[in-house]
Amino acid sequence: MPVATLNWENDCLRMIDQTRLPEELVHIDCKDVETTAEAIQSLRVRGAPAIGVAAAYGVVIAAQEALSKTDFDAHVRNGIDQLSKTRPTAVNLFWALNRQTAILDQTKGQSPEEIRNHLLKEAHRIFEEDKKVCREIGKNGAALLSQETTVLTHCNAGSLATVDYGTALAVVYAAVEQGKQVAVFADETRPLLQGSRLTAWELQQSGVDVTVICDNMAGTVLRSKNVDSVIVGADRIAANGDVANKIGTYGLAILAREHQVPFYVAAPLSTLDMDLASGDQIPIEERAPEEITCGLGKQTTPEGVPVYNPAFDVTPNTLVTAIITEKGIARNPYGEIFQAWFA
Amino acid sequence: MPVATLNWENDCLRMIDQTRLPEELVHIDCKDVETTAEAIQSLRVRGAPAIGVAAAYGVVIAAQEALSKTDFDAHVRNGIDQLSKTRPTAVNLFWALNRQTAILDQTKGQSPEEIRNHLLKEAHRIFEEDKKVCREIGKNGAALLSQETTVLTHCNAGSLATVDYGTALAVVYAAVEQGKQVAVFADETRPLLQGSRLTAWELQQSGVDVTVICDNMAGTVLRSKNVDSVIVGADRIAANGDVANKIGTYGLAILAREHQVPFYVAAPLSTLDMDLASGDQIPIEERAPEEITCGLGKQTTPEGVPVYNPAFDVTPNTLVTAIITEKGIARNPYGEIFQAWFA
Repeated sequence: MPVATLNWENDCLRMIDQTRLPEELVHIDCKDVETTAEAIQSLRVRGAPAIGVAAAYGVVIAAQEALSKTDFDAHVRNGIDQLSKTRPTAVNLFWALNRQTAILDQTKGQSPEEIRNHLLKEAHRIFEEDKKVCREIGKNGAALLSQETTVLTHCNAGSLATVDYGTALAVVYAAVEQGKQVAVFADETRPLLQGSRLTAWELQQSGVDVTVICDNMAGTVLRSKNVDSVIVGADRIAANGDVANKIGTYGLAILAREHQVPFYVAAPLSTLDMDLASGDQIPIEERAPEEITCGLGKQTTPEGVPVYNPAFDVTPNTLVTAIITEKGIARNPYGEIFQAWFA
Repeated sequence: MPVATLNWENDCLRMIDQTRLPEELVHIDCKDVETTAEAIQSLRVRGAPAIGVAAAYGVVIAAQEALSKTDFDAHVRNGIDQLSKTRPTAVNLFWALNRQTAILDQTKGQSPEEIRNHLLKEAHRIFEEDKKVCREIGKNGAALLSQETTVLTHCNAGSLATVDYGTALAVVYAAVEQGKQVAVFADETRPLLQGSRLTAWELQQSGVDVTVICDNMAGTVLRSKNVDSVIVGADRIAANGDVANKIGTYGLAILAREHQVPFYVAAPLSTLDMDLASGDQIPIEERAPEEITCGLGKQTTPEGVPVYNPAFDVTPNTLVTAIITEKGIARNPYGEIFQAWFA
C-alpha cells in the first residue's frame, strides 16, 4: 500500500519532505502560507496533483492566519497570490487555487470562521477527489497492460506526486493488485533524481520490482529489455493533447516511437488546460543552475560554466499513444475527445 | 591550447587524474603496471585513444619492472595481459597492446634493456601518431562546420580523451582556430559526468563557449536551440560503421535524426575493429551499481534497489551521418570505404 504524501492534521498541513528521501522519511508541518509556499517551491511536495492539493490546503492556512486580521478577504487572496507564484508549469496549482477563489466569492458576507470552514471542506473535497481519480486512472490504465509486462517510467508520477496512489504508477499499482506481474524501469531523472529517490523508494515500499537507470540508458533499455510500455505523468496538457511533463519526457517519447513501444500519459482531468490550444503556450519553468552544477552536494561543473536547466518539456500529441484519465482513455485526435468530455 | 593529458617523464607515465576534475588538477605517476592498470580501470585516464597510449606506456613500465627478473619476456607478457583486462569496450586498448606485442615478437633475443627501449620508442610513436591523427581529424571535421555554428556533444571526446587535441572536440578546436564561432552544448553524461566535469572544463580552459545540460535535455535543446550538428567520439567502430560509444549516444543519434541534425562520429582509424562485422558483436562493459546509486558522494537510490549500468551503447550505422577520421570523412555504406582504406 502506497505511503501518504500529505494529510490535514490538527489544523495544519503535514507532508513528507520529499527532498530528504530516500535517506530519511521526515514530515514537515505547514502552519503558515510562507512555509507552504516554500514547500511547493523547493519541491518538498511536488507532482502536479499533489501540488494542487497542497495549494488548496494552503488557502485554508491563509484563512486561519487571516482570522486575527481586520482585512480577512484581502489576506486570503494575498495568500492565494503568493501560492500561485510558486511553480508556473503545473496547471493543477491554478486549478485548485481557482476552486478556492470560487469558494471565497460564493461565501462573501459570511463570517471568517465560516469561510475558513468552507475552504477546508473544499480542500478535503479536492483531496478525496484526487484519491478517487487516481484509483480510476489506475483501473483504466491497468487494462492496457498484459499479464506479464515491463514498464519504463520517468520522474515520479506515483503516490508521492498525488494524495496516495499516483497517476503513471497508479496504473502499475492497479495492475499488480489485479495479479499482473509488472517490472518497472525507472529513469533516475536528472537533475533532482525524482526517479531514483522517489519512484524507486515508493515502488520498493510497495514490493514492486523496480530497476533504476540513468536517463541516457532509456534508448538501450527500450531496444534490449522488452519494454512493453512507457508510462509517465503530466504537469499540464493542452486542449490538443500536447503534454508538458518533466524534462526528458519529450526525448523519451521519441525513443518509444522509434522502438514501437506505446507511450502513455496518465493524468487527472485537472491537468487539462482547455484554455491553451497547444503545448507551445505552456510556460516552462527554468530552475536554478545549482540543481545541475552541484545537485548532490558536490560541485561537478567547473565554476563559471553556464548551464541550461528547463524543468519541463512539451511532448507533441502525435507522440502520445494515449492519455489515461479517470474518465477513460483518450487517443488522438485528443481535441475532439476533450471537447466532448468538457461539454 | 588544450591541456596535456599524459606524458612520459623520468621513466614513468605522468597523467592527469581525471576523477579529480574539475575540483582539482592533480597528476599521478604510474611507475608499475598495477598503478597503470588501476588508473585505466578507475577512469583516472579514459577516452579510447588515451587508453591506448596509456596502455602502450604501461607495457614499457612492465618491461622496466621485468629488468630485474629472470623471466623478462613472461613478465612483460603478463603485464600486457593485466592491462588488457582493464576495459573491454575501447578497441584502442587492444590495438596498442597488439602493437607492443608485435615489438616483443620482433625483438626476441635482444637484451631486456634493448627491448625496453624498443617498446618505449613504439609507445612514443603511438603518442606522436595520436597527436597528429587528432589534428587531422580536427581539420577534416572543421570543414563540415559553418562560420557560426552550434554543436552538441556527449561525454568527453576532447583533449582529455587523447594525448592533446581530442576527436569530437578536435573538430571544435580546429574550427575555432580557423576563426569560426562555435558554441557547444555538453551533455553532462551520467553516471560519471564526463561532460560536465571534463568537456566543460577543457572547453572553458580553451576559451570555447560551452553550456552544460543534463542528458535528458538534449531533445529540447535539439528542438529549440538551433543545434547544427551533434559530434561524439567512439570507443569501437565495427567494420560496417556501427559505433560503440558512451551510454546515451544511441538515444542521442535517434534524437538528432528526429530533428534533422547531422550526427557525426569523430575517431581515429585505431578505433575501427575490422574483425567485427557489426556492432552487436562489440562487448559492452557493465560497471558498478554505485556509479549510479551514489555517484556523487551521496546515496540517491534506496538501499537494495537494483540498477542497470551499461557503460556504452551501440549506434547503428544508419543513424550516423558521417565518420570523421584522419584519413577523411566516411559516409554510409561505411563497409566499402573502410575496406578500401585498409586494403
